[in-house]
Amino acid sequence: MADLSQRDPLVLFMPSGKRGRFAVGTPVLEAARQLGVYVESVCGGRATCGRCQISVQEGNFAKHGITSSVDHLSQVGPKEERYDRVRGLPDGRRLSCSTQILGDLVIDVPQDTVINAQVVRKAADERVFDRNPAVRMCYVEVEEPDMEKPLGDLDRLKLALSTDWHFDDVEVDFHIIPQVQQIMRKGEWKVTAAIHKDREDERPRLIALYPGLKNEAYGIACDIGSTTIAMHLSSLLSGRTVASAGTSNPQIRFGEDLMSRVSYVMMNPDGRAAMTEAVREALNGLIDKVCADGEIFRTDILDSVFVGNPIMHHLFLGIDPTELGGAPFAPAVSGAVEVKSAEIGLPMNAGTRTYLLPCIAGHVGADAAAATLSEGPHRQDEMMLMVDIGTNAEIVLGNRARVVAASSPTGPAFEGAEISSGQRAAPGAIERVRIDPLTLEPRFRVIGVEPWSDEPGFAEGVAQVGVTGICGSAIIEVIAEMFLTGIISEDGVVDGAMAGRSPRILENGRTFSYLLHDGTPRITVTQNDVRAIQLAKAALYAGVKLLMDKQGMDHVDRIGLAGAFGTFIDPKYAMVLGLIPDCDLDKVKAVGNAAGTGARMCLLNRDYRREIERTVQQIEKIETALEPKFQEHFVAAMALPNKVDAFPNLALVVTLPERKGAADAGGDGGRRRRRSRDT
Amino acid sequence: MADLSQRDPLVLFMPSGKRGRFAVGTPVLEAARQLGVYVESVCGGRATCGRCQISVQEGNFAKHGITSSVDHLSQVGPKEERYDRVRGLPDGRRLSCSTQILGDLVIDVPQDTVINAQVVRKAADERVFDRNPAVRMCYVEVEEPDMEKPLGDLDRLKLALSTDWHFDDVEVDFHIIPQVQQIMRKGEWKVTAAIHKDREDERPRLIALYPGLKNEAYGIACDIGSTTIAMHLSSLLSGRTVASAGTSNPQIRFGEDLMSRVSYVMMNPDGRAAMTEAVREALNGLIDKVCADGEIFRTDILDSVFVGNPIMHHLFLGIDPTELGGAPFAPAVSGAVEVKSAEIGLPMNAGTRTYLLPCIAGHVGADAAAATLSEGPHRQDEMMLMVDIGTNAEIVLGNRARVVAASSPTGPAFEGAEISSGQRAAPGAIERVRIDPLTLEPRFRVIGVEPWSDEPGFAEGVAQVGVTGICGSAIIEVIAEMFLTGIISEDGVVDGAMAGRSPRILENGRTFSYLLHDGTPRITVTQNDVRAIQLAKAALYAGVKLLMDKQGMDHVDRIGLAGAFGTFIDPKYAMVLGLIPDCDLDKVKAVGNAAGTGARMCLLNRDYRREIERTVQQIEKIETALEPKFQEHFVAAMALPNKVDAFPNLALVVTLPERKGAADAGGDGGRRRRRSRDT
Repeated sequence: MADLSQRDPLVLFMPSGKRGRFAVGTPVLEAARQLGVYVESVCGGRATCGRCQISVQEGNFAKHGITSSVDHLSQVGPKEERYDRVRGLPDGRRLSCSTQILGDLVIDVPQDTVINAQVVRKAADERVFDRNPAVRMCYVEVEEPDMEKPLGDLDRLKLALSTDWHFDDVEVDFHIIPQVQQIMRKGEWKVTAAIHKDREDERPRLIALYPGLKNEAYGIACDIGSTTIAMHLSSLLSGRTVASAGTSNPQIRFGEDLMSRVSYVMMNPDGRAAMTEAVREALNGLIDKVCADGEIFRTDILDSVFVGNPIMHHLFLGIDPTELGGAPFAPAVSGAVEVKSAEIGLPMNAGTRTYLLPCIAGHVGADAAAATLSEGPHRQDEMMLMVDIGTNAEIVLGNRARVVAASSPTGPAFEGAEISSGQRAAPGAIERVRIDPLTLEPRFRVIGVEPWSDEPGFAEGVAQVGVTGICGSAIIEVIAEMFLTGIISEDGVVDGAMAGRSPRILENGRTFSYLLHDGTPRITVTQNDVRAIQLAKAALYAGVKLLMDKQGMDHVDRIGLAGAFGTFIDPKYAMVLGLIPDCDLDKVKAVGNAAGTGARMCLLNRDYRREIERTVQQIEKIETALEPKFQEHFVAAMALPNKVDAFPNLALVVTLPERKGAADAGGDGGRRRRRSRDT
Repeated sequence: MADLSQRDPLVLFMPSGKRGRFAVGTPVLEAARQLGVYVESVCGGRATCGRCQISVQEGNFAKHGITSSVDHLSQVGPKEERYDRVRGLPDGRRLSCSTQILGDLVIDVPQDTVINAQVVRKAADERVFDRNPAVRMCYVEVEEPDMEKPLGDLDRLKLALSTDWHFDDVEVDFHIIPQVQQIMRKGEWKVTAAIHKDREDERPRLIALYPGLKNEAYGIACDIGSTTIAMHLSSLLSGRTVASAGTSNPQIRFGEDLMSRVSYVMMNPDGRAAMTEAVREALNGLIDKVCADGEIFRTDILDSVFVGNPIMHHLFLGIDPTELGGAPFAPAVSGAVEVKSAEIGLPMNAGTRTYLLPCIAGHVGADAAAATLSEGPHRQDEMMLMVDIGTNAEIVLGNRARVVAASSPTGPAFEGAEISSGQRAAPGAIERVRIDPLTLEPRFRVIGVEPWSDEPGFAEGVAQVGVTGICGSAIIEVIAEMFLTGIISEDGVVDGAMAGRSPRILENGRTFSYLLHDGTPRITVTQNDVRAIQLAKAALYAGVKLLMDKQGMDHVDRIGLAGAFGTFIDPKYAMVLGLIPDCDLDKVKAVGNAAGTGARMCLLNRDYRREIERTVQQIEKIETALEPKFQEHFVAAMALPNKVDAFPNLALVVTLPERKGAADAGGDGGRRRRRSRDT
């Protein structure tokens, strides 16, 4: 671009916003390359793969000083015309490899280029990322063998990859070498090479080779949760999510929570191997499923990214997780791991690699790293709190300047364990609860039944599924409502004096409980239930407070609630309970399976791998067990919502009971122990 | 070395001759590192591995301006004293890591540092190479896990490797990851890492990990010949050859020569796989044997280098060699290949790599490349001819300025096939022949019998082994002697007129033969035998001449005869026959298994891998079948020694029969065909 003047055409690429001036006649694809705008191309500019489609935004873009028009592109030439005739180009689309710049342009790089009318089944979510996958498909036409230049078939292929694609000095996966003769002859010296290049400082690597033009390549992104496993199949060429599938983690049969799985390993000589095998078997089942849904072969999967908490991460890789079960909670490996997928029992293409994001610490895993990547506290000015609640809560707090992370041993109460009527979120479970402040009568909603319990049609609906228990989101709500209606005090004591006001306040020896539903089973909230939730939320909140202390903050600007629990709880009730710190309620958002999204980002763009590797190195890890102030924060957090912290934002939308004097809210704190860890 | 003046000590390292000035107090090991002098060290300067031994040459080295004295080394300190007490240092040896420079020094870096009194069984040859192996053993003391800095075990190991050994950003072989916890704890955080780094542009790679100090590492170098396979086991730390073993190539059962093996692959669907399996099985047997001889485990082998002709190379790697059997003789891969040894069925250590040297062309193999590396025509000013004679002769001709290579289809005559009384070199075979020019009576020597046939004790000796045939070296000699004594003409015709002079000239129909030994069996040299040798030597010589044409030379300065055949033939007789061009006989040398030596060089020094990769790219390959002048050279070379070329050097030591006029020596030339290829 050395000799370009202000009179050369100005080209703006969207959505990246990158712009530059180019000489008249520059191919649009070439202009994109020069600006670092990712436009896929498999055929290398031969107008046969159709991957490099763009369109023009017409009009006067005063802000950019551009008057953009399709007339500023060269006419459709014979190669592009042939592609349109044979394969079909959507209206307004051009092949950027075969289209030259003639004047100022605003060019759209569509993120959904659908080739060969492939059907997209299901989107993982709506987010679209910049792409720069670690695997590129590179079509080349290789010189035929020549007695005068006795280079090997593979060596001539390497020359072509260097000349046409600037992949110099390509390394070759050994499995290709015995096949290279046959593939090149079958393709009549025209082949498509799958080149894996993840990091800038590593040599490009030939991982698969196909005769002729191979115009598709896929990858999987997977979040191995301790309870459920979610997998997405994406096209590496279009970025689209082609299929998604989930299953429960079969390791559950070795132990519900993570700590019981670690114990299983410690108690059983074959325990580690059995759990590794179990999770890999489930993963292979999911791979088969997404392949069937996407109508592709396993061998078409050329890249894969996995995340999980540290124990899932270790078991998946075949590493003994025992060390993660006790201080100093040392991971065997915390950095990012790359491995041939076949080496870890996930045969896809023989050349497919598996990338695992780094773990942040011994109990803040690659899933938390992926969620961080997805939600990006490190990319924003606002102080963002990210919480992923499981039997172990992973907490990340930070902004552009600094990110800190910890885990807190919340225990399984939020998942319904340790709660007398607790159960998993399933049809029949109560999921929403309101209590009338005057009558103390409840109304509630049951999973699988549309009407609330006081609305017409509820009885009919419930006749199908029953009312079987309380799931996590309803536990939060019922206890918060009990607090707002005065049934329990700020110390969490069910007030026996209320028994006179409502028959729903029941006496059980020395404590009282609240009757939520008088059916079969009878669903009550006991004093022990309240205590279990208090312990769990206090542990979580104390962890958050430690991170706020580290950041020197008395508030957070934004809260992201990750995972299934985060999706279903009502942020307002979580705040009433003091599960999360005070915050503008509009800025508290469920972020869904943020870990899965982060994994998908790393699948589609290797730059995100570098970003999270750098970020994790910079994240400061707080070991809650080592922090002297944890206990103090924990005791204060036993109160509802908190003994010391104010909730001014919450007070704008909810009338909180008046705060009483000091009470014995911390009585259980001394008996606190580190519990099983989970996410 | 920025502030050093002429007054700082001057240190010269031998045998490399590298020199430099260093501040007083610089450790000798550090000085060596700065100059690029390879001194092994496993313990990283802790005075525990004993690998970094040096000694001082005392005296006044006027040429270098150095007066060297042991007093110019620092006194033995406590760590070195402890090593000497526990392990023992040979007289005059110092540990360079623990010894500082105090004054001018000439330092010897011994190439044979024997640690722990390991017994060296058998040396491959006496040559000593500069060393710089691709695998280094690196002892480190890793930080213990710490809750405050929650890095993984592996990540802390990587930090230590970067700090102590400057191996940054180490890649890790996956098989190590599940073991890392146990190894590090067993070594109490002191471990030895085997780091593989072959090329400058690749990341170092952790391929094996041992608890504590692992003060040994081995490698194998192997030449896969079509007839025999030779393997050497070397210490990567001392460079010593610890054991050597050989075996016949079991592929012989699929075909004696290479072309018949290619045919076997073409005719049998499982032929390729069967031959690959056969050679790998033989190699595994050899590995077991050298390990048993060297008293090491297979897992102690951490690197390996293989060479072979193109067909052996392809079959070893599991590549179909059919393409090598016909024009354009395209190899599947000609460049150097690196592969995990386990991937090609040679399990050693799980992290062991196998390196194959590049092939020069479709029938000039990695063995020729290795021989080139060993003999180094590209490193010298003299024009050197290297010939490796088998059923296919590989020919390399060149000097520092330019190297050219070709192969010539000599056929199996030199190996005794196609010769009526021919046999392999084995007890009972005639190996040396002289013919009395007056009486035409022969005298000869038989393998396994010390005296010549006209010396006392011959009859007794021969009673044991018999006289069973003529081996390759004797075929050369007997035909050369027949020529020198006038029994055959320069055209190779056995002169029937001589029958009157000696009863050893026998008539067989229209041709005559020479009776070498009248026993059981009766050993004669027939007219057909002479013709077969003429065809073979003419093919070889014509190939040599083509290369000389390319170089614009009418003579060569130096000749290296490689392989077993080259070791046993008498250069003078080879020249009388016109097998090789005229040359000062003192400069014609057998170079033994030069291919095996080249393989060993690549095992012990990765710089040699780069050297031969560069050199092979620059070697010009001549396809003899495509050269119009081949036929002309071939016809001229049918004569003894040659119809047109003079042999002035040979004439100084041998009285050649007077040259006659033109004759019908080229009669067979027209029937020449490309024959089976072999080395």
